[in-house]
Amino acid sequence: MKQYYSYENFKSDTNRLINNVADFEAEAILSIARGGFTLSHAMAEGLNIRDVQSIRTELYDNECKREELTLFGTCHFNVKRVLVVDDIADSGETLRFIMEYLHKNFSGIEFKSATLFYKKTSCYKPDYWINEANAWIEFFWEKDFICERDDAS
Amino acid sequence: MKQYYSYENFKSDTNRLINNVADFEAEAILSIARGGFTLSHAMAEGLNIRDVQSIRTELYDNECKREELTLFGTCHFNVKRVLVVDDIADSGETLRFIMEYLHKNFSGIEFKSATLFYKKTSCYKPDYWINEANAWIEFFWEKDFICERDDAS
Repeated sequence: MKQYYSYENFKSDTNRLINNVADFEAEAILSIARGGFTLSHAMAEGLNIRDVQSIRTELYDNECKREELTLFGTCHFNVKRVLVVDDIADSGETLRFIMEYLHKNFSGIEFKSATLFYKKTSCYKPDYWINEANAWIEFFWEKDFICERDDAS
Repeated sequence: MKQYYSYENFKSDTNRLINNVADFEAEAILSIARGGFTLSHAMAEGLNIRDVQSIRTELYDNECKREELTLFGTCHFNVKRVLVVDDIADSGETLRFIMEYLHKNFSGIEFKSATLFYKKTSCYKPDYWINEANAWIEFFWEKDFICERDDAS
């Protein structure tokens, strides 16, 4: 049921995403940890954006209620347009929560969101996305890196 | 003179680095933007660390004097051991500056640093590193992602 998403897939899709978002002329990237980190890095390089910041949420409840999300990290923007980057809009709760937080707290700044995958059942639709997710996506960063000490235990 | 560093190289080296740092039992990763982002993501997955934060420096002078470095981003640690991650200790100025800042501002927390590459001429030697850099390393994230609109201009 898992669909492995290789670096080669990522390279091709990320280049499409970079070209799709180019018109927005983002001056900073806000990366959602952890899932958005590799994509943010690649997009920042491709778009020549040096201002890359990060934010993190934690969910304390399995029922996936928005109220349970807690935000970690503080952003400081001295720009007009920020691209918010995550790997996938799955339930969409994280992205919806963060976008609402940003709109409330940073008036005067335009935020747009970009992901590689978007699920039709997501409660939030990113401004830019490449693939519709129909299976469980196993990103290469989730599969390719293993601590052998953990395996042995 | 440039040495391309592919994803396959990265995958192999990062797995070695993950296993080398495992004994430190880091509870959080501080990623140095932008260069450390992809490595931080991979290491966080391999080490099962969810608390990933980021920090950024800018150099306003080409003479590479330490006084010219400015730090962006704020960290909040509720842990005892933090791994600071960057791609390369080249001049070493960024890492030295950040490690000094962390030691001064977060007493009681142990910080260790990890990079893929280390140059012998660096003014700072990371606690963990994999390769000595003898050429100009061109990381795959610097080469594989291109905005075609920029190319056309």
